[in-house]
Amino acid sequence: MHTVLTIDEIQAAYRRISDSIYRTPLEESLYLGSEDRHYYFKLESLQTVRSFKIRGALSRMTTLTAAAKEKGVATVSSGNHGSAVAYAARLLGIETAVIIVPENTPAAKTDRIRFYGGTVLRMGRDYDEAHRLGMAYIAEHGLTFIDAYYDDPLIYAGQGTISLEILAQNPDIDTIVCPIGGGGLITGIAVAAKALKPDIRIIGVQTEACPAMIASLHEHVFYEEYPVTGDTVCDALVGGVGKLSYELLGDLLDDIIEVKETTIRQAVKHMILNERQIAEGGSCTTVAAVMDHAERIGGHHIALIISGGNIDGALIKELVTE
Amino acid sequence: MHTVLTIDEIQAAYRRISDSIYRTPLEESLYLGSEDRHYYFKLESLQTVRSFKIRGALSRMTTLTAAAKEKGVATVSSGNHGSAVAYAARLLGIETAVIIVPENTPAAKTDRIRFYGGTVLRMGRDYDEAHRLGMAYIAEHGLTFIDAYYDDPLIYAGQGTISLEILAQNPDIDTIVCPIGGGGLITGIAVAAKALKPDIRIIGVQTEACPAMIASLHEHVFYEEYPVTGDTVCDALVGGVGKLSYELLGDLLDDIIEVKETTIRQAVKHMILNERQIAEGGSCTTVAAVMDHAERIGGHHIALIISGGNIDGALIKELVTE
Repeated sequence: MHTVLTIDEIQAAYRRISDSIYRTPLEESLYLGSEDRHYYFKLESLQTVRSFKIRGALSRMTTLTAAAKEKGVATVSSGNHGSAVAYAARLLGIETAVIIVPENTPAAKTDRIRFYGGTVLRMGRDYDEAHRLGMAYIAEHGLTFIDAYYDDPLIYAGQGTISLEILAQNPDIDTIVCPIGGGGLITGIAVAAKALKPDIRIIGVQTEACPAMIASLHEHVFYEEYPVTGDTVCDALVGGVGKLSYELLGDLLDDIIEVKETTIRQAVKHMILNERQIAEGGSCTTVAAVMDHAERIGGHHIALIISGGNIDGALIKELVTE
Repeated sequence: MHTVLTIDEIQAAYRRISDSIYRTPLEESLYLGSEDRHYYFKLESLQTVRSFKIRGALSRMTTLTAAAKEKGVATVSSGNHGSAVAYAARLLGIETAVIIVPENTPAAKTDRIRFYGGTVLRMGRDYDEAHRLGMAYIAEHGLTFIDAYYDDPLIYAGQGTISLEILAQNPDIDTIVCPIGGGGLITGIAVAAKALKPDIRIIGVQTEACPAMIASLHEHVFYEEYPVTGDTVCDALVGGVGKLSYELLGDLLDDIIEVKETTIRQAVKHMILNERQIAEGGSCTTVAAVMDHAERIGGHHIALIISGGNIDGALIKELVTE
């Protein structure tokens, strides 16, 4: 990998992908905030395939050679990244897009991947086994592996294009609050935002159920895997951290906040019933952070990244009635 | 009023408003449809102010003289049109935007109008009295009245810009299904769509709780007022029909379908829990029409207008759990 993650790479990524994605709304909250503190939702929950993941997938896949496109692409993901790779392949005319998922993946998830044009392969009892078997399958068939977040700067550059939009949509934004799972999203966002506006503050949020990046940064240990503690509504945020994120975030983050699952649940409910936005639990960590830590976050014009909208219907029902 | 409703007027309206609105997504349903029948949601529920009404308000208000802007604008509406006029005024630098609502209007609605920059005036015990007193107030203060749907071609032209987007987003669309309240939305849509694609089919939908346009067209009677029968989740669709709609729709509509409230309730639930879209009851009449009358609607590439996203939180809770 010879690319490094710079504002030039992020701007180049935006030129490659901007015709294929939505410039998602940056909408002021009707309910959060006060006279001198305004919160804005960056609604990647309304993005194509309902998640920011399409940005990274397209950023990477638009650089493939004709030969690589001919052979096809693959990834291991039952979630937003899997659907994003499938859909990006369709947009780019790549016929083979193999999405490898664990054997026990629910039909709702595999149906979604197929809807977006992917070929689903079930293998392995859990994600780790699916990944191990999947990587062997990908090598054997000469497919290009599309990394979700581990260390591909082109993926990170795609996610960073969100900052270009935010600062064009509202140059007054002084603080960006962003969920952290593997860290690809916030790393791209931070590199772009700080290049364009050096005094902007970038604040990460993790669920208490899996504070892998908090532990990694505090202990200076690269936690490639990390356990989940207790129940979580943040499926998209569980697991270890990305290598590139781990290397860069120490210098880029102004703060990193752990939020409670009980608050995240309230935040999802608030988004649906009051703001009337459907957002994933993991995405609502930013709203939960405002609910419990508004003073710590500070700022006057604060963008909250709402990273995805693929929340399960049964969970919506459960959360709006509790 | 010297303007008439033509495709030229609709295209001119689009030039005036397109920089101030979202080109809302036209997204294929993941759940409705079959091999040779595809349904697409035109998501005006994600439009600025969460409703198509901003198109008409801006279309009208961008033509005001400097003197009229200086004096200010007003309307009588506690719903989407009221918020749209307030927000359009803010965008256009019109300082006075008076939104007249009945005395008993809930705080949630008036808060929303104020959030978008409107001055709320409460008068009259119900909408009819608010309208009568409001029109007197507007005349007395020299404000420009911004018609919701009655007979202003500039309002209709703004709503018609939706068709320009739909046919640019997917030229294969052969059928458009649209909710009818006063009729302004479908009339604008039909004039534009049939000018651009003469064989396109336009199908209107009304709730059984207030089938005013069905009665008007069948009986050849202009029902300026019309009673509501039973409970309805379609607040935005109740009342009589617009004069211009009544005059034009007889020639423009290919069919008009009445849908049951029980199906509309299921349609709202389906949209939230499966499609993960928050839409008003009135907007989900188009989804309800597909659920109960797919063969009658026909077509291969069918656009369903989802006209607004301002549904009450308590109603969301009620519908997703029933």
